[in-house]
Amino acid sequence: MLTDDEKFFHNQKLTQKECRKFAIQNAADIIAIGFDLKKTFIFSDMEFLESTFAAAFNENVRELGKRTTANQIRGTFGFTDSNNISEFHFPAMQSATAFATSFPFIFGYDTKKVSKIPCLIPCAIDQDPYFRQCRDYAPKMKLPKPAIIHTVFLPSLKGSESKMSASDADSSIFLSDTDKQIKKKIGQAFSGGQETLEEQRKLGGRTNVDIPFQYLTFFLEDDEKLEKLRQDYESGEITSGDMKAECTEQLQAYVRAFRDRRKAVTEQVRAEVMRPRQLEFRGMPSEEEQKASRKSKFAALVNALSLDDIEFLRQEKASQTP
Amino acid sequence: MLTDDEKFFHNQKLTQKECRKFAIQNAADIIAIGFDLKKTFIFSDMEFLESTFAAAFNENVRELGKRTTANQIRGTFGFTDSNNISEFHFPAMQSATAFATSFPFIFGYDTKKVSKIPCLIPCAIDQDPYFRQCRDYAPKMKLPKPAIIHTVFLPSLKGSESKMSASDADSSIFLSDTDKQIKKKIGQAFSGGQETLEEQRKLGGRTNVDIPFQYLTFFLEDDEKLEKLRQDYESGEITSGDMKAECTEQLQAYVRAFRDRRKAVTEQVRAEVMRPRQLEFRGMPSEEEQKASRKSKFAALVNALSLDDIEFLRQEKASQTP
Repeated sequence: MLTDDEKFFHNQKLTQKECRKFAIQNAADIIAIGFDLKKTFIFSDMEFLESTFAAAFNENVRELGKRTTANQIRGTFGFTDSNNISEFHFPAMQSATAFATSFPFIFGYDTKKVSKIPCLIPCAIDQDPYFRQCRDYAPKMKLPKPAIIHTVFLPSLKGSESKMSASDADSSIFLSDTDKQIKKKIGQAFSGGQETLEEQRKLGGRTNVDIPFQYLTFFLEDDEKLEKLRQDYESGEITSGDMKAECTEQLQAYVRAFRDRRKAVTEQVRAEVMRPRQLEFRGMPSEEEQKASRKSKFAALVNALSLDDIEFLRQEKASQTP
Repeated sequence: MLTDDEKFFHNQKLTQKECRKFAIQNAADIIAIGFDLKKTFIFSDMEFLESTFAAAFNENVRELGKRTTANQIRGTFGFTDSNNISEFHFPAMQSATAFATSFPFIFGYDTKKVSKIPCLIPCAIDQDPYFRQCRDYAPKMKLPKPAIIHTVFLPSLKGSESKMSASDADSSIFLSDTDKQIKKKIGQAFSGGQETLEEQRKLGGRTNVDIPFQYLTFFLEDDEKLEKLRQDYESGEITSGDMKAECTEQLQAYVRAFRDRRKAVTEQVRAEVMRPRQLEFRGMPSEEEQKASRKSKFAALVNALSLDDIEFLRQEKASQTP
């Protein structure tokens, strides 16, 4: 779920068009992280709502919205009367993503069966209130409570006391940074080393505040090597410069590999991942079930289109498909 | 706009399915009033949102929602913190209907041109707050303010001081009432006549409170005849019974004609009127414009469907079309 609508509601300056554009870019970046695309559906809220496949999703949004009072939103998100009504309403959208029944084109149209499929939400802690509220409503809707797994934030390059910020380029590594920029940024990162080489040799570095070491805990896959770096740094055997060099190398390799994968994400790949479609996974609806469910899946669309419209769709799609 | 979603949000007992069913029935009844179907598009909120044609509508909902604070809704509708967030959000949906740009499949995709098309909203006074708010936002969205025309409520059969109520069958004539029921209800209606025939002849009836006469001002097309009834009643020449007989006859004829037209509204007719489609009116987009706009109209759908899906749609539609 790319919440381009929420971005629009919260930000006074951005237009819908701009928010949609960001969502498209974000999708390509997320795909480049390396997901199994046969198991991955990414959607922009605005685009998904237009796709005719959001019927079940919208049904859940309405159920959730009806069960959520303005008072609860105020309490959970600290909203005031000056917040706009779309902001108040958005949590119902966010919560609907946590139920398999919102996505029958993936999980199938057998509501009774699909109602039992649980949901795991990996998110940063700032998203927690949305799903905490969602967990409260799930039993009332006779749906399973989603489970939440909180991901750890990367600290700011300026030290764990300060915050990463998109407006301060030196506070974080961007996936668009060049090798040179990465080297410079890590060189300036907050260090847990001592002021002089002599002190470093004697007292050792403090890995618990050393940002290059902290980053290595995320990006260095080799745990033995990481442990050795920790010991050598704390004992004063290696310097901040050594730690920064190791971190720079790992990050450059990571960003370089990302850049290569990002290049492989063509517009066609992105569009396909964002197309509401059957995913492939253990327990997916059988081919028979898929066939049987097509009638309900497309009922609204069959009503809304004329034969002439459908012929036009066919021609358009055929001309796009190589 | 049949607000089946609003009905669901406001009513604790009704399910979405029930609200949709009511909307379908209401649509058939509205059609039977006698609209020119080539100029008429009726939609249920829930169904329309599923039809893939609601993209522009939703865009306007988001613009309106972003511009409306919870405080304004509270002030306009008297909502409290116990109202649910869907109720808070609904006015943005309601207002979006007042802009031609929400319906490009009717008015065309030339936003600059369509932005200038004004809107006239005939509604009862209880709907006024929605559109009053809408008028405030229109200039901020560079769209014309909708004009509102307030229709007059039919008084309750029990007198203009009391209220019509769906739960009190004797307070109003239903379009499903039989000739016999109509006769009985009008017979019991609040009368402006005198207690005795003698007094009636001497003092005359009071047309300003006489419900059968009030109803005739709505249902008797012949203004001269109406004026004569007024004079004869006020001068005591005719009695309450005469007035009731006249009213009964007119209402029976009206309901009978409605019943005949209602029978002609087949499920196929209803579905067609509720299909988002090009209407026929002076100033409608030219055939060239319609052809040119098809690309934008169907862009989202072409992305969302596979060739295989489209072939399935074709077969389904063909099997439905006689």
